[in-house]
Amino acid sequence: MNFNIIRAARAVLHVTDLEASRKFYVDTLGFVVTESNDNHLYLRGLEEQSHHSLLLKKAAEPALEVLSYRVFSESDLDVLAEFFTDKGLKTKWLEAGTQKAVGRALRVEDISGLPLEFYAKMDTVERLLQRYDLYKGAKVQRIDHFNCMVTNVEKAYDFYIKELGFACSEYTASEGDRIWAAWLHRKPSVHDVAFMNGKGPCLHHIGFWLSDPMSLIHACDVLAASGYTDSMERGPGRHGLSNAFFLYLRDPDGHRIELYNGDYLTSDPDFNPIRWDINDKRRQTFWGHEAPDSWFNETSTVLDVEGEKAVPASEPTLKQHKPTFII
Amino acid sequence: MNFNIIRAARAVLHVTDLEASRKFYVDTLGFVVTESNDNHLYLRGLEEQSHHSLLLKKAAEPALEVLSYRVFSESDLDVLAEFFTDKGLKTKWLEAGTQKAVGRALRVEDISGLPLEFYAKMDTVERLLQRYDLYKGAKVQRIDHFNCMVTNVEKAYDFYIKELGFACSEYTASEGDRIWAAWLHRKPSVHDVAFMNGKGPCLHHIGFWLSDPMSLIHACDVLAASGYTDSMERGPGRHGLSNAFFLYLRDPDGHRIELYNGDYLTSDPDFNPIRWDINDKRRQTFWGHEAPDSWFNETSTVLDVEGEKAVPASEPTLKQHKPTFII
Amino acid sequence: MNFNIIRAARAVLHVTDLEASRKFYVDTLGFVVTESNDNHLYLRGLEEQSHHSLLLKKAAEPALEVLSYRVFSESDLDVLAEFFTDKGLKTKWLEAGTQKAVGRALRVEDISGLPLEFYAKMDTVERLLQRYDLYKGAKVQRIDHFNCMVTNVEKAYDFYIKELGFACSEYTASEGDRIWAAWLHRKPSVHDVAFMNGKGPCLHHIGFWLSDPMSLIHACDVLAASGYTDSMERGPGRHGLSNAFFLYLRDPDGHRIELYNGDYLTSDPDFNPIRWDINDKRRQTFWGHEAPDSWFNETSTVLDVEGEKAVPASEPTLKQHKPTFII
Amino acid sequence: MNFNIIRAARAVLHVTDLEASRKFYVDTLGFVVTESNDNHLYLRGLEEQSHHSLLLKKAAEPALEVLSYRVFSESDLDVLAEFFTDKGLKTKWLEAGTQKAVGRALRVEDISGLPLEFYAKMDTVERLLQRYDLYKGAKVQRIDHFNCMVTNVEKAYDFYIKELGFACSEYTASEGDRIWAAWLHRKPSVHDVAFMNGKGPCLHHIGFWLSDPMSLIHACDVLAASGYTDSMERGPGRHGLSNAFFLYLRDPDGHRIELYNGDYLTSDPDFNPIRWDINDKRRQTFWGHEAPDSWFNETSTVLDVEGEKAVPASEPTLKQHKPTFII
Repeated sequence: MNFNIIRAARAVLHVTDLEASRKFYVDTLGFVVTESNDNHLYLRGLEEQSHHSLLLKKAAEPALEVLSYRVFSESDLDVLAEFFTDKGLKTKWLEAGTQKAVGRALRVEDISGLPLEFYAKMDTVERLLQRYDLYKGAKVQRIDHFNCMVTNVEKAYDFYIKELGFACSEYTASEGDRIWAAWLHRKPSVHDVAFMNGKGPCLHHIGFWLSDPMSLIHACDVLAASGYTDSMERGPGRHGLSNAFFLYLRDPDGHRIELYNGDYLTSDPDFNPIRWDINDKRRQTFWGHEAPDSWFNETSTVLDVEGEKAVPASEPTLKQHKPTFII
Repeated sequence: MNFNIIRAARAVLHVTDLEASRKFYVDTLGFVVTESNDNHLYLRGLEEQSHHSLLLKKAAEPALEVLSYRVFSESDLDVLAEFFTDKGLKTKWLEAGTQKAVGRALRVEDISGLPLEFYAKMDTVERLLQRYDLYKGAKVQRIDHFNCMVTNVEKAYDFYIKELGFACSEYTASEGDRIWAAWLHRKPSVHDVAFMNGKGPCLHHIGFWLSDPMSLIHACDVLAASGYTDSMERGPGRHGLSNAFFLYLRDPDGHRIELYNGDYLTSDPDFNPIRWDINDKRRQTFWGHEAPDSWFNETSTVLDVEGEKAVPASEPTLKQHKPTFII
Repeated sequence: MNFNIIRAARAVLHVTDLEASRKFYVDTLGFVVTESNDNHLYLRGLEEQSHHSLLLKKAAEPALEVLSYRVFSESDLDVLAEFFTDKGLKTKWLEAGTQKAVGRALRVEDISGLPLEFYAKMDTVERLLQRYDLYKGAKVQRIDHFNCMVTNVEKAYDFYIKELGFACSEYTASEGDRIWAAWLHRKPSVHDVAFMNGKGPCLHHIGFWLSDPMSLIHACDVLAASGYTDSMERGPGRHGLSNAFFLYLRDPDGHRIELYNGDYLTSDPDFNPIRWDINDKRRQTFWGHEAPDSWFNETSTVLDVEGEKAVPASEPTLKQHKPTFII
Repeated sequence: MNFNIIRAARAVLHVTDLEASRKFYVDTLGFVVTESNDNHLYLRGLEEQSHHSLLLKKAAEPALEVLSYRVFSESDLDVLAEFFTDKGLKTKWLEAGTQKAVGRALRVEDISGLPLEFYAKMDTVERLLQRYDLYKGAKVQRIDHFNCMVTNVEKAYDFYIKELGFACSEYTASEGDRIWAAWLHRKPSVHDVAFMNGKGPCLHHIGFWLSDPMSLIHACDVLAASGYTDSMERGPGRHGLSNAFFLYLRDPDGHRIELYNGDYLTSDPDFNPIRWDINDKRRQTFWGHEAPDSWFNETSTVLDVEGEKAVPASEPTLKQHKPTFII
């Protein structure tokens, strides 16, 4: 690889009611609003200097427009454009100024049909890490990772590991030792992106980092007191895979958000990816709770590289395994 | 009332395998062993000066032998004996010395057929509250309450409130405003005992107090790592009723234990019992999780006042309401 | 005793700038405002049904007007009035309606010259325990205790134990085994009131209960971010005595507030008061930090039974022991 | 740079009494013993796959033998050897097999005279992250950073930034805008190493990562209960600089250890180093506590590149600023 992808950096979601989104993300979960207008809500976590890590756009239908990765330099973008073009995958340039606060951006369709974006620059704003007087709800600190359902996890795994330079921290092996799900990272954490076998390409969830486990417990209480009991889909619990303390939420448009605290350092090149057998009892959450069906079956539609049409979802390569995988 | 019941003070459980019990209660949950022999395990929490709050006796069948309340003085016992005799309820004296560490004890059958015990004295031992070097597992602090299934909650409610001097903190009202479940206390907390409508008389669970919510989260992790995933029946979660942070466990004999942190002060005479409608959505745990069927249907058999025969369970007065009540 | 004192129930403080007080207590610490006007701020904790537990009155000079105890019934007030009159101690009745939300109240001067008040009734309001959406700052739950400096702790100890029916949980013994400080309770916690040897009668601090240790850590962060670094006088730390996790604050008028979590149950009559030697190394906070001089030397002036004049402070009976005692 | 330093990876300390060290690090703080013999104790944190991150060697005098950095590949070592030799700095090779579990290692003297080591390989062992049944004390997760006192911080800063490829997260600026202290990282956290102005070259402390703030509070309690009150030198508290929740300990030989939780992600190339003025009130810990003199004045002696003789400490370039800097 002659490019350097730093980390999962932002997601752009289409939502149908910005006021409902604001009540959920800002008033209840405690995201910071960097700025907003009638059609956009630019959100960030308390420690983030980047202008935003979650952009909500008003639209007729809920969807994922794009998953964005930060790269090290402008030249990385050119190399990436050439790479994706060579692979026969669709690309599209968005010049600096096209998107608020974002530098020149390369949008592409990845090997699974997922809409990705790469950029090297985003405007910086005040880091509010020590403005504890502004903390509320889940006290969301920063974006952490994306989780996607794809029809062929092994193909995605090979593409991200061998072509894009990701490393694998943990994976689930299915019949015949096929990779059924995989957690991949660029920054030295458990993941920047995970792929699970399922109807896809679809977005399963976006994970946000919390500072400590009690913030997650408090978030549950605040959500319940604010009328969001039905939004609390799964957890709190401990993931066997990744070891994180987690809570899954559904936003007002059904997009799934994970509140997440607790993974570990994966910086060393001899880190051995942890293998979980799909029939291992520990596939379930570490404390033994099963995931609800909705967690397994429901995902967000993704848009094509033009950000216009929904990409149709196909059936997966491997057999489904009802809520028996982890994370 | 001319007697002064202080608090729920101990439970005597029959268990079939003391070593299995020791591994669960002592090695994993962190109960302190005051003493033990081939047939008895005397356990207490880290802050308790009383010799024990949980006595496990080796027996052929699991059962609850008795639920014990501490009273203020020896004379209270005599007044209680007279009271229960007058009510036509069975009584039995156990003189001091009959039970290790326990003074003169009055055993009775309560209005629902539950085996109770009252005593004024128990040997005291070292309080280990600040021996943090000995803390492990759930770091259990003290016994908190009993929860029983009875066939007629209103009858139990009247008996405990009007005759025994308990006060009600919260209750669930069913069709026709009948009391379906009630939380009653002598010490100024949410409860020393709770009654729920169901097949009874049976023991639903014994509640133990933890010092803080993170001890409960850590207990989940320790239980899972120690192979007790299947013992974790419900939770962690927040109770709507009582507001406590909870985890329900099944011990190796199936007895249910609640780890519990977080109720509130109920000392004032004008405290208004909190009414929960059985059709109120908030009946579920505050965060919206349903209790599993086992939590609803499975209980411990209770023994008669002689501690010998199982008391047969009868069908309840009111309709069952599958996991829709709280705590 | 033919009266039943329930608990420490409220304090009335004189403050010089209500807006500064509101910023500190409400905006930063998270007290709930029940109501307010130009001269009064009626505050309560999140779990309290009582109208208020802290009344701040605008005045020219900061002072403690009165420490209030809740009693069980109106008749307790009459018996208490007779008792204090018999002792030759000043009393004053405030009829119901004189003080907002408070029933008939008996004000007295206690044996140390401290201004006390007893009442049986206070208006009740909505309990906000589960309104987690309103939680902020320290998420103060309820009033817990008073701590006073008096010139003769043994005299106060005897008066409260033998005459008012309090029990002792822990105490510090000085030269010749004289009681140098004592923690006394009516509700079955470590204390409703504590007395320390020093220039008095004066108010040392008012203690408020938090739900858990992380709320206290978060409170430190919020206080620092809100510009109250200089208000954080001592802590966070663990008390040897009482075992509580604590933080001491000075409000804008210099009144000292303790945020407090973690004591233990003291309901049993055979509870052995814990003796701490004044030369015992553990007198210091359990983790070994010394208290600053200000914590030792600075207190709030108390008013006489008429609530008008400051009671002059006298030198203590026993030798001072610079920050070597605990709590 | 044609080499890739991954992270601060281990420290080698000389200690005078291995049993005393074991009681402190293993029995009390909860480090895992990978292996040990009469003269060595190989310790690691609960999440570490590397054989050890802290090696304690029995010796006549306490000292730091070396601070080790993990590099990406064997060839990085060769490039580094050439680099240090070119700079005229002492180097020494330790072939694979010389040190237990460690591959070929390059030892060097850095620009400040500190003994560093680089290696690409260390044996891996079982990761105990989810063996919660083994957790105790502080539940130490992994090594995080080194902190050193040097006579010329700006020289060290330039060397690490410009020559070794570190980035700066935060720094303290003194008179004339001179860099008085600096926090530098390779992994995307606040630091792998920090330099403070003072008598040097000396080791100030080694920082270990905890999973959450409550583990740190619990560690304080366990340390106090285990007789280590005098070992608790500073904290718990919140660092203004780095935002971490911290506790500083002195081990039985006086080496300083930091327990640390809570920094933030520093992966982006446009991260603006945070400047703290040495006269800024916030230089103190975020909650306003001052550091004790010992924290400022006492450090561990470092050995020369041969690991034999103590490197004499010299006076610093800039004026000392008693406990007014942060971390």
